[in-house]
Amino acid sequence: MRLIATLINLAVENIAGYKLLAVVKYIEQKRYLMGFIYVAGVNFLLTLVATVLCVCFAPTAAGPGIPEIKAYLNGVDTPNMFGATELIVKIIGSIGAVAAGLDLGKEGPLVHIGTCIAALLGQGGPDNYRIKWRWLRYFNNDRDRRDLITCGSSSGVCAAFRSPVGGVLFALEEVATWWRSALLWRTFFSTAVVVVVLRAFMEYCKSGNCGLFGQGGLIMFDVSGVSIRYHVVDIIPVAVIGVIGGVLGSLYNHLLHKVLKVYNVINEKGKLHKILLSLSVSIFTSICMYGLPFLAKCHPCDSSLLDASCPTTGRAGNFKQFNCPKGYYNDLATLLLTSNDDAVRNIFSLNTPTEFNIYSLTIFFALYCILGLVTFGIAVPSGLFLPIILMGSAYGRMLGIAMGPYTKIDQGLYAVLGAASLMAGSMRMTVSLCVIFLELTNNLLLLPITMLVLLIAKSVGDCFNPSIYEIILELKGLPFLDAHPEPWMRNITVGELADVKPTVVTLSGIEKVGRIVEVLKNTTHNGFPVVDAGVVPPMGPPNGATELHGLVLRSHLILVLKKKWFLQERRRTEEWEVREKFTSIDLAERGGKIEEVTVTEDEMEMFVDLHPLTNTTPYTVVENMSVAKAMVLFRQVGLRHMLILPKYQATGVPPVVGILTRQDLRAHNILSAFPELEKSTGSKKGH
Amino acid sequence: MRLIATLINLAVENIAGYKLLAVVKYIEQKRYLMGFIYVAGVNFLLTLVATVLCVCFAPTAAGPGIPEIKAYLNGVDTPNMFGATELIVKIIGSIGAVAAGLDLGKEGPLVHIGTCIAALLGQGGPDNYRIKWRWLRYFNNDRDRRDLITCGSSSGVCAAFRSPVGGVLFALEEVATWWRSALLWRTFFSTAVVVVVLRAFMEYCKSGNCGLFGQGGLIMFDVSGVSIRYHVVDIIPVAVIGVIGGVLGSLYNHLLHKVLKVYNVINEKGKLHKILLSLSVSIFTSICMYGLPFLAKCHPCDSSLLDASCPTTGRAGNFKQFNCPKGYYNDLATLLLTSNDDAVRNIFSLNTPTEFNIYSLTIFFALYCILGLVTFGIAVPSGLFLPIILMGSAYGRMLGIAMGPYTKIDQGLYAVLGAASLMAGSMRMTVSLCVIFLELTNNLLLLPITMLVLLIAKSVGDCFNPSIYEIILELKGLPFLDAHPEPWMRNITVGELADVKPTVVTLSGIEKVGRIVEVLKNTTHNGFPVVDAGVVPPMGPPNGATELHGLVLRSHLILVLKKKWFLQERRRTEEWEVREKFTSIDLAERGGKIEEVTVTEDEMEMFVDLHPLTNTTPYTVVENMSVAKAMVLFRQVGLRHMLILPKYQATGVPPVVGILTRQDLRAHNILSAFPELEKSTGSKKGH
Repeated sequence: MRLIATLINLAVENIAGYKLLAVVKYIEQKRYLMGFIYVAGVNFLLTLVATVLCVCFAPTAAGPGIPEIKAYLNGVDTPNMFGATELIVKIIGSIGAVAAGLDLGKEGPLVHIGTCIAALLGQGGPDNYRIKWRWLRYFNNDRDRRDLITCGSSSGVCAAFRSPVGGVLFALEEVATWWRSALLWRTFFSTAVVVVVLRAFMEYCKSGNCGLFGQGGLIMFDVSGVSIRYHVVDIIPVAVIGVIGGVLGSLYNHLLHKVLKVYNVINEKGKLHKILLSLSVSIFTSICMYGLPFLAKCHPCDSSLLDASCPTTGRAGNFKQFNCPKGYYNDLATLLLTSNDDAVRNIFSLNTPTEFNIYSLTIFFALYCILGLVTFGIAVPSGLFLPIILMGSAYGRMLGIAMGPYTKIDQGLYAVLGAASLMAGSMRMTVSLCVIFLELTNNLLLLPITMLVLLIAKSVGDCFNPSIYEIILELKGLPFLDAHPEPWMRNITVGELADVKPTVVTLSGIEKVGRIVEVLKNTTHNGFPVVDAGVVPPMGPPNGATELHGLVLRSHLILVLKKKWFLQERRRTEEWEVREKFTSIDLAERGGKIEEVTVTEDEMEMFVDLHPLTNTTPYTVVENMSVAKAMVLFRQVGLRHMLILPKYQATGVPPVVGILTRQDLRAHNILSAFPELEKSTGSKKGH
Repeated sequence: MRLIATLINLAVENIAGYKLLAVVKYIEQKRYLMGFIYVAGVNFLLTLVATVLCVCFAPTAAGPGIPEIKAYLNGVDTPNMFGATELIVKIIGSIGAVAAGLDLGKEGPLVHIGTCIAALLGQGGPDNYRIKWRWLRYFNNDRDRRDLITCGSSSGVCAAFRSPVGGVLFALEEVATWWRSALLWRTFFSTAVVVVVLRAFMEYCKSGNCGLFGQGGLIMFDVSGVSIRYHVVDIIPVAVIGVIGGVLGSLYNHLLHKVLKVYNVINEKGKLHKILLSLSVSIFTSICMYGLPFLAKCHPCDSSLLDASCPTTGRAGNFKQFNCPKGYYNDLATLLLTSNDDAVRNIFSLNTPTEFNIYSLTIFFALYCILGLVTFGIAVPSGLFLPIILMGSAYGRMLGIAMGPYTKIDQGLYAVLGAASLMAGSMRMTVSLCVIFLELTNNLLLLPITMLVLLIAKSVGDCFNPSIYEIILELKGLPFLDAHPEPWMRNITVGELADVKPTVVTLSGIEKVGRIVEVLKNTTHNGFPVVDAGVVPPMGPPNGATELHGLVLRSHLILVLKKKWFLQERRRTEEWEVREKFTSIDLAERGGKIEEVTVTEDEMEMFVDLHPLTNTTPYTVVENMSVAKAMVLFRQVGLRHMLILPKYQATGVPPVVGILTRQDLRAHNILSAFPELEKSTGSKKGH
């Protein structure tokens, strides 16, 4: 199941590795131009493959996919998000994009791949070739699909960072909207499976069966070698890192927002523009990666480092010779002419205080800031984690060099803390990042300072703007429901909200086919209240009462029309009649479109008994409920429709005064109807 | 704030340490009887102090306190749980009980202490001497109090295990009922503070300022020394440990349930019985701890262990000489004649495959099984974690010896895994235990197998009985609301449930004082619906409509009576009149009792305008809602009262047909009214 994650790693490491080996050979022969053409060409081709696949076959596979997953778990379904095409495109595209040396990670795409696999498993295969096994029906409801997708996302993170607990927490903190304690151990189970599979693979690969893959071990960026001594005074540099990380992170969010807006304009012009954009970013990246190291000076190898071979000969390693004479190394080439993972490993490396020149680090940092901004929006599968880690570690190490005389903390640790602070400043996660960093670096003693850095960076970042995922959600226009209602929502009741909407369309319990067709054609609502008039309640007057029977879904109405389950006269149906006609699988399917249904004139005059198809117990609120409280109910219970009842009880009062959906409760939409609300923030508290 | 946790550790380690040192001296002089009298006497006195304090001053301080905290966060308030008396008794009692060598841990009490501090801080001091600062008012609502208490419990776990992330997850997985993402980083922040304070303390104590405390370091049971190699075949013993752990854990739960029932009978007989019970357990423990090592044989020291001094001379250490000649050690004394923490450290110790005899381990295991069962219920502050860890590690090590020839896993690791499996088998936590064990042992490579063991043990245990905390909750009779409704709850509507209850008591918007007093005296309800008759709705008939105005709380009614806010005539009040009389602090306070209120005959004829005191937007359900769905709403939104509305809309129909509280929704109470429901499990699914 999760083998795929490992296979991607394997493919990426092999392609990128052999590419780099070839480059090193060219450089050794001093054929710099040939080397550049080779690198740029390979990168260009790989990017081309990734982009063309994304643009032509699965536009939703571009980007990280995490915001869409977050929205799905909040109740917003993006079409064509979890299909088989998306899965395949995402896998190949991700391999291509990462191997092409673009400044993006495979973490976000792996999360998306995990959820795609989960969704496909849950529905028994791709849409058109589904296996309809009996037990698969258990997953055929919203809640279990959501659970599966949450498990998928947590195992995606687990596979990306080899961090099982971090994966669970990521799913909990960032992705999921609703959380149950059962879900906790289900995600835990799925990450456990991933880790066991991953370990088995690595054991197999240790013997050299997988090419260049598998020398990493379970811990990706191990810094457990040193024993860390820090004292109370070290809190000051740690706080400084946190504050700067928070500021930089929110600045990055702000700039990325602007860049993505520009990209959206370009991308809307057509497929060709999308492809050209990606390719120009690829060429720019190749030029920078290859050209910039020439700007760096050659450093002599430090002879006191006995264990490290310098200059390094292979594809990875801390000291790249590049264009330098023997016994010298180029520090910028060490960081640039390598895969992203190795760059992180190099910059995290401990006990190498003199390895990197501050001048080289500044170039590196500036380059990755630019690349991180321009690369993310192009039409290839891209993850945000790695670019941010690279940026953060560069600035952390720069800070470490600047503070060198005043502190005893190793520069490698500064890099780790810088990466953590920028992540927290941009993504605003705390616990999950803390555990992911713990599992990445395998050093428990770092925990207290990592926690401090994360908390400071998150708090500072929160002063400026929302997290990067929320910005992307906003840009994509997905109607995400926030956890907390805005303060001004206490000053408006759902009744007032319902008044500015078109009057609610109700159906009666036994309705004419003609009216159903008309209602379905003239409205776009997905749910209609069903009201019976003239019933006899146990208390009250002998007749003339109206009864709120419930809510009927658009998809069920279309199903009735499609199956032509019509009655000649107005009568209540028996249970067996319904059972005969509709299976529970039919009812769980998504409905078609009203345009696909043809009803003859005669049939228009017939009747449908809606009672058996009605959800008789929709959640309701009374009209004087404040929007804030209604929203808590809506989000906590996870609703799609909420009926508004009148607060008066008398004959002639309509039993339903309105119906609320997700769109009605979005802050943006309420404010456009009630612009005066924004000023009244928090002045009156609904008791 | 969290210094107290560290101070407790300090006190415990010093008392227990000096006690043990004295014993060692007696034994060296071969004055065994004197040694015994000394140990037993000290233990007896310490237990006496702890018990007397608990029994006489704060009965709620006995036991771990975690179930009560869990219930509080679910919405069930145990009286006198989070007061200052409880805090002090818990601290002193816990020091006494742990130092007395009883088989109980300080983890549970530390969690309770953490929550007590949080609650006291939140309300600005003990009940009678409160500081009424303005900013403290922010915490004066249910949600923020709950958040504070959650933070307190997570920092308690953090202080107990020195495990910050584990603390957050424990609060999330076991303790909290509602979870918001803001809570996640709040708990994270509080554990970060704890860790930083703890580190600062340790640095201070390293220089020897704290007596015998502080030699442990941040990681309690460090097993990171060895590099662990395990292969796919090692899954078999790991699975075996998991299965046995699950079975033993549920067996332990079962037996503890029985023992606690017996203890409840004894404890109900009076304070003296409680004290006697504790003291006899203390004497029994002393006898076993001191007497049993004489049964073990003396082993010669292994001369190949160069670094370990054998026999150990100090109070801790792996090889206790006890009654043996020089160059020999008594393995059972190593485990028994020491503090509980050191016992765990000794049994987890790595690379000592021949240190413990299987015969000694069996005695140790059997002893701790008995002690674990009889000690927990006595009237002292007691934690469950450590006894279970001790039992589990003993059985794990036994299993390791039994499997010795077939596996390469170290016996110390078997002990760790055994402890983890028994914890999961008894407490049924997964993620939090996994992280706690990770942070206790500081070995990331252990993670995959720990995860497997935990999952297997939890699944096996779940087949037999609920978790130990749920059993204790059930025994204490706390009305805890489970996360999931029972399947048969779909077959009953809230209307049916309301029918078997006494008719709902409603008040009118402007009510006579006499009727309010009468209603308050004759019922025990905490909330009353407020209904206005004869209002004119915007639609419907010109008059004769009834309006559901909302819900008024008992405490607010009593406040009105106390402040004598009566009107001469039936009229609506203005807003300023209310503001003048009641501050928001008054309204947030808990009300007194109706018996404390005196109302004269004249006043009885006056009126009260309840409108301004009414919560106008209570959550409501329609009467044909199934109990299952109503319960989801009740629990997810965290309600205390839920109004039931009629599904009919006509003049004369009462606007409220019932009111539901937590007690009404408990499975037990519904089944006693509708005994036939249990049989119909899951036959009909509410659509």
